[in-house]
Amino acid sequence: MSERVVDLGFARVDVDREARQGAPEVVYGPGKTAGEIAAVVSALLARNSGPVLATRIESAVAEAVLAAVPGGAYEPAARLLVWRPAPTGSFAVAVVTAGTSDGPVAAEAAAVAGALGLAVTVVRDVGVAGIHRLLAETGRLRAADAVIVVAGMEGALASAVGGLVAAPVIAVPTSVGYGAALEGVTALLAMLSSCAAGLTVVNIDSGFGAAMAAHRLAHAAARHASPSAPEPGGRR
Amino acid sequence: MSERVVDLGFARVDVDREARQGAPEVVYGPGKTAGEIAAVVSALLARNSGPVLATRIESAVAEAVLAAVPGGAYEPAARLLVWRPAPTGSFAVAVVTAGTSDGPVAAEAAAVAGALGLAVTVVRDVGVAGIHRLLAETGRLRAADAVIVVAGMEGALASAVGGLVAAPVIAVPTSVGYGAALEGVTALLAMLSSCAAGLTVVNIDSGFGAAMAAHRLAHAAARHASPSAPEPGGRR
Amino acid sequence: MSERVVDLGFARVDVDREARQGAPEVVYGPGKTAGEIAAVVSALLARNSGPVLATRIESAVAEAVLAAVPGGAYEPAARLLVWRPAPTGSFAVAVVTAGTSDGPVAAEAAAVAGALGLAVTVVRDVGVAGIHRLLAETGRLRAADAVIVVAGMEGALASAVGGLVAAPVIAVPTSVGYGAALEGVTALLAMLSSCAAGLTVVNIDSGFGAAMAAHRLAHAAARHASPSAPEPGGRR
Amino acid sequence: MSERVVDLGFARVDVDREARQGAPEVVYGPGKTAGEIAAVVSALLARNSGPVLATRIESAVAEAVLAAVPGGAYEPAARLLVWRPAPTGSFAVAVVTAGTSDGPVAAEAAAVAGALGLAVTVVRDVGVAGIHRLLAETGRLRAADAVIVVAGMEGALASAVGGLVAAPVIAVPTSVGYGAALEGVTALLAMLSSCAAGLTVVNIDSGFGAAMAAHRLAHAAARHASPSAPEPGGRR
Amino acid sequence: MSERVVDLGFARVDVDREARQGAPEVVYGPGKTAGEIAAVVSALLARNSGPVLATRIESAVAEAVLAAVPGGAYEPAARLLVWRPAPTGSFAVAVVTAGTSDGPVAAEAAAVAGALGLAVTVVRDVGVAGIHRLLAETGRLRAADAVIVVAGMEGALASAVGGLVAAPVIAVPTSVGYGAALEGVTALLAMLSSCAAGLTVVNIDSGFGAAMAAHRLAHAAARHASPSAPEPGGRR
Amino acid sequence: MSERVVDLGFARVDVDREARQGAPEVVYGPGKTAGEIAAVVSALLARNSGPVLATRIESAVAEAVLAAVPGGAYEPAARLLVWRPAPTGSFAVAVVTAGTSDGPVAAEAAAVAGALGLAVTVVRDVGVAGIHRLLAETGRLRAADAVIVVAGMEGALASAVGGLVAAPVIAVPTSVGYGAALEGVTALLAMLSSCAAGLTVVNIDSGFGAAMAAHRLAHAAARHASPSAPEPGGRR
Amino acid sequence: MSERVVDLGFARVDVDREARQGAPEVVYGPGKTAGEIAAVVSALLARNSGPVLATRIESAVAEAVLAAVPGGAYEPAARLLVWRPAPTGSFAVAVVTAGTSDGPVAAEAAAVAGALGLAVTVVRDVGVAGIHRLLAETGRLRAADAVIVVAGMEGALASAVGGLVAAPVIAVPTSVGYGAALEGVTALLAMLSSCAAGLTVVNIDSGFGAAMAAHRLAHAAARHASPSAPEPGGRR
Amino acid sequence: MSERVVDLGFARVDVDREARQGAPEVVYGPGKTAGEIAAVVSALLARNSGPVLATRIESAVAEAVLAAVPGGAYEPAARLLVWRPAPTGSFAVAVVTAGTSDGPVAAEAAAVAGALGLAVTVVRDVGVAGIHRLLAETGRLRAADAVIVVAGMEGALASAVGGLVAAPVIAVPTSVGYGAALEGVTALLAMLSSCAAGLTVVNIDSGFGAAMAAHRLAHAAARHASPSAPEPGGRR
Repeated sequence: MSERVVDLGFARVDVDREARQGAPEVVYGPGKTAGEIAAVVSALLARNSGPVLATRIESAVAEAVLAAVPGGAYEPAARLLVWRPAPTGSFAVAVVTAGTSDGPVAAEAAAVAGALGLAVTVVRDVGVAGIHRLLAETGRLRAADAVIVVAGMEGALASAVGGLVAAPVIAVPTSVGYGAALEGVTALLAMLSSCAAGLTVVNIDSGFGAAMAAHRLAHAAARHASPSAPEPGGRR
Repeated sequence: MSERVVDLGFARVDVDREARQGAPEVVYGPGKTAGEIAAVVSALLARNSGPVLATRIESAVAEAVLAAVPGGAYEPAARLLVWRPAPTGSFAVAVVTAGTSDGPVAAEAAAVAGALGLAVTVVRDVGVAGIHRLLAETGRLRAADAVIVVAGMEGALASAVGGLVAAPVIAVPTSVGYGAALEGVTALLAMLSSCAAGLTVVNIDSGFGAAMAAHRLAHAAARHASPSAPEPGGRR
Repeated sequence: MSERVVDLGFARVDVDREARQGAPEVVYGPGKTAGEIAAVVSALLARNSGPVLATRIESAVAEAVLAAVPGGAYEPAARLLVWRPAPTGSFAVAVVTAGTSDGPVAAEAAAVAGALGLAVTVVRDVGVAGIHRLLAETGRLRAADAVIVVAGMEGALASAVGGLVAAPVIAVPTSVGYGAALEGVTALLAMLSSCAAGLTVVNIDSGFGAAMAAHRLAHAAARHASPSAPEPGGRR
Repeated sequence: MSERVVDLGFARVDVDREARQGAPEVVYGPGKTAGEIAAVVSALLARNSGPVLATRIESAVAEAVLAAVPGGAYEPAARLLVWRPAPTGSFAVAVVTAGTSDGPVAAEAAAVAGALGLAVTVVRDVGVAGIHRLLAETGRLRAADAVIVVAGMEGALASAVGGLVAAPVIAVPTSVGYGAALEGVTALLAMLSSCAAGLTVVNIDSGFGAAMAAHRLAHAAARHASPSAPEPGGRR
Repeated sequence: MSERVVDLGFARVDVDREARQGAPEVVYGPGKTAGEIAAVVSALLARNSGPVLATRIESAVAEAVLAAVPGGAYEPAARLLVWRPAPTGSFAVAVVTAGTSDGPVAAEAAAVAGALGLAVTVVRDVGVAGIHRLLAETGRLRAADAVIVVAGMEGALASAVGGLVAAPVIAVPTSVGYGAALEGVTALLAMLSSCAAGLTVVNIDSGFGAAMAAHRLAHAAARHASPSAPEPGGRR
Repeated sequence: MSERVVDLGFARVDVDREARQGAPEVVYGPGKTAGEIAAVVSALLARNSGPVLATRIESAVAEAVLAAVPGGAYEPAARLLVWRPAPTGSFAVAVVTAGTSDGPVAAEAAAVAGALGLAVTVVRDVGVAGIHRLLAETGRLRAADAVIVVAGMEGALASAVGGLVAAPVIAVPTSVGYGAALEGVTALLAMLSSCAAGLTVVNIDSGFGAAMAAHRLAHAAARHASPSAPEPGGRR
Repeated sequence: MSERVVDLGFARVDVDREARQGAPEVVYGPGKTAGEIAAVVSALLARNSGPVLATRIESAVAEAVLAAVPGGAYEPAARLLVWRPAPTGSFAVAVVTAGTSDGPVAAEAAAVAGALGLAVTVVRDVGVAGIHRLLAETGRLRAADAVIVVAGMEGALASAVGGLVAAPVIAVPTSVGYGAALEGVTALLAMLSSCAAGLTVVNIDSGFGAAMAAHRLAHAAARHASPSAPEPGGRR
Repeated sequence: MSERVVDLGFARVDVDREARQGAPEVVYGPGKTAGEIAAVVSALLARNSGPVLATRIESAVAEAVLAAVPGGAYEPAARLLVWRPAPTGSFAVAVVTAGTSDGPVAAEAAAVAGALGLAVTVVRDVGVAGIHRLLAETGRLRAADAVIVVAGMEGALASAVGGLVAAPVIAVPTSVGYGAALEGVTALLAMLSSCAAGLTVVNIDSGFGAAMAAHRLAHAAARHASPSAPEPGGRR
């Protein structure tokens, strides 16, 4: 067991996860000091060979972590730190947003997915109040192997997209909106109740969760295509 | 004051409402016996001149009431009793549904609106999971003076319609769906949070409320067009 | 399609909305920089001919936007920026408030409606705890083509107004109150459950939504009166 | 202590309550057999001298209990069993309802209050959608020492009454309504958030609770008027 | 009607309330400037003869208002401004708290009640986790004409007090506690569900509401004792 | 692994649990046929040596199961089936209820605890509305090694007991009550928010859960007293 | 457009969906008569070539539908009707349940997935209270291309599985449990909040939704492996 | 009675609690000034002989209190002040956390338990997403007399631990997580709905409550082992 876990005292790092799931453990920033983040990242870099990520990192913290652990890059819109990004593979993911306010969540989804080796396209600002904007992008949506839909308020975009494409749809409710939008709970419930069959949903504002779900899909597709071949994104 | 209210002991009938609001008080059936419904209807017929309606009436009760107060008609799909329906006027209302399960609520909306003199068209089963069904009906929707959208589950149809038409949109969430649909609360919250500007919403499953709101619109339009002329549906 | 949407990179502006719905897309300020707001406003001014609005704009942002896009005006109580306001038409809207704390939401409703060409009257501070204040204003309320009721706490004013007028009533719950008022949710639920038939409701604190709903009514009334004539507020 | 409690095995009867609070313990029917109710009632009749009540009793159960413990009376509308009702005193309570569906809750309030010696008037069906109905009854409301307001849906009647009278107002939300009325929760929250100062609220559908609260008021008023004199309703 | 309302432009002051309800309108501070508060207070002082109060006033605002309208006093613990307090009458109110954190709400209840002429006693820190603390105060509680119970967390004190006294009990849930206390909602629901019969409840943290309810009780008791005599606290 | 699980096709029985946790897996009845229950019980009897229980069994099902698996006994009030009950040990548990309606949940707690070898005392009907009833039982409560408090409505009894005893208190909220009692959610939240320190809470109506928690306590106490000796109830 | 929709009067069948999404529209049974179901099924059979399904069909209705539309089969545990099931393809799905009560939802998931051509394995009754049961099945779980986790109560199984496999995990919360399980809402929220990264969630009790999501995955994997080849399950 | 309570004016200190429950009253810091905390602590030190604790104390306040009442110690991670900690006894408690963000709550639990004389072990960061981390610690968990499980998000760790150990499990939900984690409510509901039998739960983030519950267990175990001997931690 000592091979599979690194105990840093304040944290127990699951260095086995890369072997088990095709991607290393991802560091969740809030509540950790820059020093703690750096220590976990260093352990992951030393004991794994694939990409290492830290999410929800504010810029001041990012600077401190990068000083301690060189070789990484910070994407401010996504609040993401990345070391050793995977080479871009062939699995195509479209990240679609309803409005400009959904941008930060979409940025996290896109950046995490990209760092894990997925081929990402972003389709912005195609909410259903102007449905022709969405229909004009049908081609780009249908070209994707999976679609991540990022929408707040009533989240109707997920249903509309779900009806247009045959690919897996991962819906991300956002906390955009006020009053009856209930900090994203309304979009969450709406997406779960969608009349479009076979949608799946992740937590509110979890661009990260959607990207990880897409990574699982890419993993499955690659394995299904060729069980003995290396996995997408070069992670094995 | 004795002119404006009829006290039946078990109920105080607001016979002044027709003069004040352009339509008589409508009788809400649940919790009242057939005898009580008949008594209120009789008072309204005697003291008003326009249409008299009783809503949410089961068929056995309807039969008993009609036996006691002849001259009415029962519409089973809408669970509605009507006496002296108004002649159909020029104000056009489209009632649009997302799925077949929304039918009973749409039937109530259509029947109440029709009894009050509105010109009603029903457009069925155009939920956003197959958006081309909706787009194919754009012409009929744009021809209406007002649109009532009846949808359960995630209620996304309201946003899509709201973006297609310039007319007033009255959204009716229904209790269709299960689990996260929360008996219609999800559709309600979603419609209130819609990204399409200027939608209005009524209570869950309230086809009646939507029709009454449409009647207020017709009233306003008629008055605006010709303040001194008779109102639509012949109610004055 | 390229004619109907302007892609600014960070946003996709629906410049077709004016033709489709009688009023241009309105810019929602929160989450956008002054530069982004200015860019969208400029696109709308260039591609549309009617009024252009930006809502929920703090004064410092407003100053920056006005410097970049001259010709606009800022109404601080409503937090609204307006360029090319429509001339005032004949459709009369009364905005009624329950208490002084409901003022900012009413100001937004009044300012947006006014900018879109509606003729607005404000009736302040007539909550039901002193019902004679409301009854004294019955005449002004009945003179309106539509009534917007702005109320927090228990929102009872909507029901009282709904029983006094025949015109369409658009109820706006506000987040005024504490404890059991649940940030406006109680007023929202109460207005939806109103015993006054035919009320419609918009989102909590959405003076904007109520004004847009009133604009749809004015549109419908004008069209109904004279289908081939220009619309109210000079928007065609 | 053995003097103050009677242990029946399945229940521990608080026979001291009459001395401590001016009225005996009241038996809550649901979940108890007719035999159990009869046993508790017998214990209370034997160890107390004032009125004995059992609430929420269906008619079949009532018949069985009355057969076992003669001398009582059953009021079906209130689902109440009463033995030894108190003589009617001078403390006047008005029970006011918004609509006919609120009748059963009002009946319980009126019957319990009456059995405890309060002088009860019922004012029916004066909901705010026809505010003139309420205003016409202002005199009767102002004549009461306390007012119980029974209302479902949005519960706005409580606020309106609260603004008309100086007396204590006890608001009883009812589960009347559907959808957003949330089984009475909306009326409950609305009454607690009322803009009329000094209202108090009891549980949903609790006509019993309101009557007991009124009894406490009568007790306080009698004591205040004449601390050493017997209490209203002859209960000491 | 012009006699009964003073229109200040930003507010419509109900100067008739003193005559109608035995106490002038009370000014709610949040959302109003010091200048607005001063204007309303001045109108009330000029058109009424009894006490004038403004609640939830922070100390800086209080200072500014007192400078503009001399003759008032500020009670910081209660955040209350008072002009012309009523002389203390004979109606005795006990304000009871569960813990020290409930102090500010109790202070508001006590100060408002005192300013309206009630005779107030405060019994602090007798929560049910040490029930002997409460029992030791039974005598003081039973001496009161009414009891206001102020408690957060699970609010169990209201039930315990309700079982000890025959007087009216007004329960005030507070937002004290964390997690499952849900900002006072748990105490609110618990008090409404109390097994002690005849409790009444006001809004979360509303010491003001409880005091106004007690004032209504005092009014009723005084009137009941002597319908034609002046009211308690000298308010007529 | 094949030693530790018995696969019955429709269920996978955890026959290792007795060794791991000191008591066999307990069969939850709802949703299982009498035949399925009998099969699981038989597997547990064959592969374990301690008591075997099935909970929430209606009497008709119980009869069928007992016919198929002789040697068991049914306790109707607790809806419990028991085979091989443990001999009563020395760990004393008091089960305390607030009212008679809490009886069935208390019966389940008492019967399960008894079947597992705990020494159970039941103290009925000591709700806080008559606090002297509870205080009169202080001695019996303090004699127990652990106390299970069963209460619905506002659940205040848990706090009062928590302040009287030093022993572990396991609070069981019940669904007794109506309206604001929210099917037991209010009692649950109140117990979790208790001002009495160190209470623990189980699920609504889960007499079973409370008894299992008490069994864990007995286990811990026995082990702590004598780590190498047999456990209470003879289960090892 | 007329080619893509069949209007049956009571329903508008989206016969284009098979071409657009790789599987025909699925008929949702509740609220439809046997005759209506038969008509929709017939339209789908006539205008599509792949499998046709109707879900949530009670056995009496199933019999009537099968009599009207021969060639179908009914699976009672899944409440599913199927015509023209797809041949089983190579995409492997494991359906895992926490307890026996989750069986019906798992049966629906398995039957729908099987009818669409997926290769389904069911792993029953491996809830985390006996974690060795789950670990013993790790091999079967890791052999699957996707895993559907069906769990009620606290839904912890989804997190445990999510940590064991690299494949996509679709979590289905069920309404199994009582009290704090809140009819499946607790499991739903727990699954959405899972500490295992990249899980996705569908609606409560929606075995159907999970199977459709799995079908989308199979579609994506097949297309990714060989964009121009036929899809899995023979649906093109 | 004067012996059992010390009245400090602003607070009523329950100095009898040590005798009644084996540990003195614990001071809850929020809302109290440093001076008030010092006064209560001084009263407790003077009238009791065991440990005295103050919880949720920020460091600046702690410094001021320690200056006023020397002899105490501050543990910043736990935000705890302690005077006269009990000597460590033989009752062993394991505090287990799911992730590093649960650290502060675990620190409070461990520090309070330690100050009361329990022998505490902390097992960090063993959430179910990497179940092997938990299984590797099974030995340490099984060695404990009681286990406190601290987990946010979906709280699944409680169920997994509950299935591994026979000892009492006290689950502490934390507010760690976002969106559907609902500030700890999801973990709370999940732990209450656990499929592992006999878990108990305390309030969200209440490390203090869990430690006090563990102290009650230790008390019971010690008493059970030797009713007449001194209690663990030297508290008698």
